[in-house]
Amino acid sequence: MKAYEITPGAGGALTLVDRPQPEPKVGEALVRIRAASLNYRDLLIADNAYGGSAGKLIPLSDGAGEIVAVGPGVTKRRVGDRVTPAFYPDWLMGPISAESRRRGLGGSVDGVLCEYMAMSESALVPIADHLSFEEAAALPCAALTAWNALTEIAQLRAGQSVLLQGSGGVSVFALQFAKSMGAEVFHTSGSAPKLTRLAAMGADHVLNYKTHPEWDKEALARTNGRGVDLVVEVGGPGTLERSFRAVRVGGTIVTIGFVGGGVEVNPRLIIGRAIRLIGVSVGSVAMFEDMNRAIALNHIKPAIDEVFSFERAGEAYAKLRGGAHFGKILVRI
Amino acid sequence: MKAYEITPGAGGALTLVDRPQPEPKVGEALVRIRAASLNYRDLLIADNAYGGSAGKLIPLSDGAGEIVAVGPGVTKRRVGDRVTPAFYPDWLMGPISAESRRRGLGGSVDGVLCEYMAMSESALVPIADHLSFEEAAALPCAALTAWNALTEIAQLRAGQSVLLQGSGGVSVFALQFAKSMGAEVFHTSGSAPKLTRLAAMGADHVLNYKTHPEWDKEALARTNGRGVDLVVEVGGPGTLERSFRAVRVGGTIVTIGFVGGGVEVNPRLIIGRAIRLIGVSVGSVAMFEDMNRAIALNHIKPAIDEVFSFERAGEAYAKLRGGAHFGKILVRI
Amino acid sequence: MKAYEITPGAGGALTLVDRPQPEPKVGEALVRIRAASLNYRDLLIADNAYGGSAGKLIPLSDGAGEIVAVGPGVTKRRVGDRVTPAFYPDWLMGPISAESRRRGLGGSVDGVLCEYMAMSESALVPIADHLSFEEAAALPCAALTAWNALTEIAQLRAGQSVLLQGSGGVSVFALQFAKSMGAEVFHTSGSAPKLTRLAAMGADHVLNYKTHPEWDKEALARTNGRGVDLVVEVGGPGTLERSFRAVRVGGTIVTIGFVGGGVEVNPRLIIGRAIRLIGVSVGSVAMFEDMNRAIALNHIKPAIDEVFSFERAGEAYAKLRGGAHFGKILVRI
Amino acid sequence: MKAYEITPGAGGALTLVDRPQPEPKVGEALVRIRAASLNYRDLLIADNAYGGSAGKLIPLSDGAGEIVAVGPGVTKRRVGDRVTPAFYPDWLMGPISAESRRRGLGGSVDGVLCEYMAMSESALVPIADHLSFEEAAALPCAALTAWNALTEIAQLRAGQSVLLQGSGGVSVFALQFAKSMGAEVFHTSGSAPKLTRLAAMGADHVLNYKTHPEWDKEALARTNGRGVDLVVEVGGPGTLERSFRAVRVGGTIVTIGFVGGGVEVNPRLIIGRAIRLIGVSVGSVAMFEDMNRAIALNHIKPAIDEVFSFERAGEAYAKLRGGAHFGKILVRI
Repeated sequence: MKAYEITPGAGGALTLVDRPQPEPKVGEALVRIRAASLNYRDLLIADNAYGGSAGKLIPLSDGAGEIVAVGPGVTKRRVGDRVTPAFYPDWLMGPISAESRRRGLGGSVDGVLCEYMAMSESALVPIADHLSFEEAAALPCAALTAWNALTEIAQLRAGQSVLLQGSGGVSVFALQFAKSMGAEVFHTSGSAPKLTRLAAMGADHVLNYKTHPEWDKEALARTNGRGVDLVVEVGGPGTLERSFRAVRVGGTIVTIGFVGGGVEVNPRLIIGRAIRLIGVSVGSVAMFEDMNRAIALNHIKPAIDEVFSFERAGEAYAKLRGGAHFGKILVRI
Repeated sequence: MKAYEITPGAGGALTLVDRPQPEPKVGEALVRIRAASLNYRDLLIADNAYGGSAGKLIPLSDGAGEIVAVGPGVTKRRVGDRVTPAFYPDWLMGPISAESRRRGLGGSVDGVLCEYMAMSESALVPIADHLSFEEAAALPCAALTAWNALTEIAQLRAGQSVLLQGSGGVSVFALQFAKSMGAEVFHTSGSAPKLTRLAAMGADHVLNYKTHPEWDKEALARTNGRGVDLVVEVGGPGTLERSFRAVRVGGTIVTIGFVGGGVEVNPRLIIGRAIRLIGVSVGSVAMFEDMNRAIALNHIKPAIDEVFSFERAGEAYAKLRGGAHFGKILVRI
Repeated sequence: MKAYEITPGAGGALTLVDRPQPEPKVGEALVRIRAASLNYRDLLIADNAYGGSAGKLIPLSDGAGEIVAVGPGVTKRRVGDRVTPAFYPDWLMGPISAESRRRGLGGSVDGVLCEYMAMSESALVPIADHLSFEEAAALPCAALTAWNALTEIAQLRAGQSVLLQGSGGVSVFALQFAKSMGAEVFHTSGSAPKLTRLAAMGADHVLNYKTHPEWDKEALARTNGRGVDLVVEVGGPGTLERSFRAVRVGGTIVTIGFVGGGVEVNPRLIIGRAIRLIGVSVGSVAMFEDMNRAIALNHIKPAIDEVFSFERAGEAYAKLRGGAHFGKILVRI
Repeated sequence: MKAYEITPGAGGALTLVDRPQPEPKVGEALVRIRAASLNYRDLLIADNAYGGSAGKLIPLSDGAGEIVAVGPGVTKRRVGDRVTPAFYPDWLMGPISAESRRRGLGGSVDGVLCEYMAMSESALVPIADHLSFEEAAALPCAALTAWNALTEIAQLRAGQSVLLQGSGGVSVFALQFAKSMGAEVFHTSGSAPKLTRLAAMGADHVLNYKTHPEWDKEALARTNGRGVDLVVEVGGPGTLERSFRAVRVGGTIVTIGFVGGGVEVNPRLIIGRAIRLIGVSVGSVAMFEDMNRAIALNHIKPAIDEVFSFERAGEAYAKLRGGAHFGKILVRI
C-alpha cells in the first residue's frame, strides 16, 4: 500500500513509500482509509517538538474509512462499516490514564496517512450517516478535544458562557458544540472576516483582539463584571493571563496547548479566585460515541477549510503552518 | 389588599377576602403581584391531599410582579425590579435539605394569589427581559422542576435522550429545555392534536399511548434496544413500570409525582439494570437564576394555555382539574 | 478437571463432573482456582429465580487462584500471579451498560466452582499481598457491591452516616469500608450476638430490629431528626418503607436486592423528600482495583464465616440458605 | 472592649486599642471571643501583600468563643452556644462566587483579635464537644482549606494517595483528614524531627526534601511509576514543577498559595498529562459543618504548636514568621 512517512525532527519532510498492507489480527479490522485531517500537533511532531516516536512514522492521527476485512473474533464491526479510528486506541472509556494514552496515532505509533490500517474493532467508531469521509476525518482529535473540554471536564450547561479563541479546529468545533448545548459563546480572533464567519456560525459575542487587545475586560463588561464560566485556552503565553482575568470566580480554564514554551502563572489569580486550570488531551472511545450521537442528532457538520489530494499532502502541512485556515485541513486518500 | 383564601380539605373553595397589606421587614421587599400560575400541587392542597398547612391559606406558589417598596438593609433589589418569588424562599443554593424545604409558598405558608407579598430579597429572582409577568409567573414550580431534573439531577447532555410524558407544565418545559440543550426527546401523550403540537415544539419522537400502549417497546426500538438515558416520570402507577423498561441500563428516572397512591416497584428492573429513581422537588434560588440565564439566552417562552382574570381564579382551578390543558394556566392579578 | 455443575431450577443440586481443562486463547490466562465464595444470588440461580442461563452451568461468581499459563498476546499478567476473576469480565471501567453486564460469572456464563478457568487477562485482578486465596475469593461480588454503593454511587464522605442491615457479605464489607472512610455506621440485625460482633468491628450504633422494630425512628433520633445520609438496602419489602423514613431529605438508598417480590413505594416519601433510590449491580474491574488499593492500605480482612472443602460444597449452599452466617461462606478448591 | 488593630503595610505592628463593644443587629449574635489562631495569610496582610483593606483593621480570621447575646430574629443559635465564626461569613453553601468571598474576616473586614464580635447567626458554626476554644479557633481557615481541597475539590477516596508539604496548618490538617478517610499520605519536610512527628500522626511515606531533593522521583517510585492522585501544593515556585511530575496522569494539584510571586508552568506537563491545577480559597459554612461532623466522629484534635496570651499576640506573629512551628499558633483572649 501507499503511505507517507515522516522522520520527526528531520525537517518534517513527507516521503511517499510502499509498505506491506497490514493484516487484521484477532479482534482487529482492516480499514481502507479514505480521508485524513491535520492538527497543530502534527506540526509539532514534524518539528520533533512533541516528544513522541524517534524513528520513521506514518503521520496524522485523524482518519476515516471503511472496513474491508475483519480478523478472527470480531463481533461488533462488519465489512462495509464506515468508521473512524480513535486517536488513543487503548483509551476505551473511563478517565485518562498513563496506560490509556500510551499509544497515540501518528505520534507514538503509526498514523493514518496511508491506504490501509489494521486496528482493534474496539477503537473503531462508526461514522454518523450525514457525514462524508472527509467530514468524519475532521473529528478524532480536534472535535473530541472540544467535546471533552466542554462536556466531560467543564460540564458546560445551557445558559452558561464560554470564551473561545481563534479559528482552529478545536475552537470552531467548540463553538458548534457550545451553541448546540444552548451556551453563550464569546469568540476572539484577530481577523475581521473570520469573526464575521464565527458570528454567522452562532458566536454571541465576537472580539477582535487586534483592534481590542483587552478582550478580557470586554468579556467582563458583557457579563456584568462576573466573567465567563469557561475558557478553552489554545493560545498560551499571549493569552493565559487574560483568560485568568476573563473567567469568573470558581470558573474553569481548559487548556489544549501553549504555543511556544512555558507560561508564567500569577498566583493571586488562580488561588484567590479559586480558578480551575485543567489540561485536556483528546478523549476516549466512549466520549467519541457520545459526541457522535450529539453530532448526528443536531446535524453538526465540521467546518472544512480545504481538501487536498493524497499527492498534495505536503501542501496541506504548509497551509496549516501558514495559519490562515478556518476549521480543518483535509487530505483525501 | 385583595387576596384569595383556601381552607385545605374544606372543598377547596376559594374565598375572596381583604387582608392588610404586608410591610417589608429588614431584608425584605414588597412585591405587587401581577400574575400567578397553577400547578397540579395546588389541586392536591385544595383537596387536603398534600400534607401542608391546616388552616386558611393564600394559595398558589407561582407568581410574578414588581417591587414597590423595600425594607431596611435591602441591597440587591430595588423598587421597580420585576421579580419572581421562589417556591422555597429558604432554599437559596446547595442541595435540598429539610430546612430549605420547610416553607413552600401556597403550601406550608401563604402563596401568591393576592395583590401584595413581602419577601426576603434573597428569594426574589429577576425576570428575563423578554418575558411578560404572565410568562414569568409560569416558571417557579414547573419550569424549575424540569430544569432541576434535567440539569442538576440527570446532567443531561447534548445527544442524550429523554422521555417525557403528557402536556402538563413540567413536561412541556422539559421539552423546551431538552431541545435547547441538544438532547433527543421522546414524548408521550394520549391526544393526537397535542402530539402534533409537541412535535412542532421540537419533540423528535411522539408516542400516542392510546393507539400504542406499549410505548416502552417503541422507545427501545427507536434506540436500537438501548433505552433512553432519562425519563421524567409524571404519571405514576400507570406508567412507572413502563418507564423502568424504557430507560437504559444505568439510566435515570426522575419522578415528580405519583398520581393516586403507592407504586409497586419490580425489584429486578431497578437492581439488575442499575436504575436510578430520584425524587425531585422544585429547586433552589441559584438553580432558578441559572435557568433564567438559559431561558434568556435561548429566548424560551413558556407555553401558556389560558390566562384568567383575578375574579375568575376559580375557573382556572376547574380547567386544571379538567386536564385538557397544554402548558400553563395563569391568573392575571 | 473437576467441576461442579448445576441446572438452574432443577432443584439446584450440585453435580460433580469431569470437564476438559480449558486452554487460554489470545489475551487470556489460565487460572488454577483455589477458593470460591457464595452469595445470595447463587441461591436465586439455583432456584431459577434469577433469570440467567437455561442449561447446565458451573456455578458461583467469586473465586481466587493463581495463573498457571498464559495465551498469546498476554502482557499485563504472568504465570504465578495471584488473581481474582471479575464478576462481570466485560465491564472493565466506566459506567455500567447493557453490554458490560451481559456476561456474569456463574449466571449467564460458567462460574468458578471448578479447578481451572481461562479468562481475559483484563478481567483478572491482582490479589492484595495480605490476603489468602480464601480471603480474596470473598471479594468479587459482595465487597465490590459494597464498595460501588458507598464510593461510586453515594460518594460517602468522612463524617457522613450510613445505615446497614444484617450480617450478610455486602453489609459486613460496607461496615468495614465505611469505617475505613471515617463514616458513621448504624447497623441493624435481629441477633444480639451479631450486633455485639458488628459493634466490635466498629459499628457506631447497633439496632436490634426484633427488640426495637422501629429502627427508623431510632436512626432519626440519633441524628437529631435529620436522618442518615445513606442506606444500603438489602432487605426489601420488610424494610424499604423504614429506610425511606430513616434517610435524610435528599439522601440516598442504594438497593442491592429485594427478597421476595415487588415493593410498594410511597410516593410522598420519595418525591417530597427528594430521595434517590439507586440499584447497584456489583462493579467494574477499575472499581475492583480501586477497592483493592483501599483494602491493602487499610489492612482490611474479609469476615469469613466458614470454609468448606470442595467435596462439601453442597453444605456451603445449605449453610447460606440457613441464614445464620456472619460474613462470607467459602469453598476451598 | 479590647482589640488589636493593624494597618496593612505600616510595618504590620499590632496596636492594642479600646473599641466600643458591638451590638447584635437583626439576625446577629454577639460572640465573646476566647481564642484566635494565625495563618500565613495574616503575615501577608500585615505586609500589605494580600490586597485587602486599606485602613486600620482588627486582624486574624480564625476565632472561637461563646454567644453572650442575640439580636432580634435569631432562631438557630442561643446564648451559651460555643461557636466559630466563618472565614467568609457570606459564603453559606454552594460553590464559591465573587459575592460569597467579598467579605473575609481579618482581610476585607475586621477579624477576631478582640474581645467581642457581632455576626450573622448563619455564619456561626457550633464547636464539636471534644474541642476546647483554642482547638476550635485552629479550624476556620487552615482546616477548612484542607477539607475543601481533599473532599469537595479532589473527592479523595479511601485507597487513593495524596502528597502533602511541610508542617504548616493546612498540611497537618490535610494529613489528619486524609488518614481518617483511609487515604495514603506522602509527606515532605526539610526537618527530620518534624518528619518523625508526621509519621507518628500517620503519614505513610515521609520524604526529606533536604536529604532527598528529588522527592517527586521518590513519590513515583513508591507508586510503581504511577504518581500520586493528589498534591496539596503550598510551596509554589520551589515545588510546583516537582508536584507536576509527582502526580499521576489525570491527577489533581490543589494549590493554596505560591510563596513569593509568579510560577512558570511547563505546558507539556499540564496538557499532555491532563493535570488539573485548582485554586482553593477556604470553604463555605456548609463545608465547615460537614467537616465538623468528621472531626467529631473521628475525634480529630488540631495539632497546636503554642498558645500565647492576648498580651503576647505580637510574639505569636513572630513565631509564625520564624517558620519553625508545627501546626497552629494560638492566642488566648
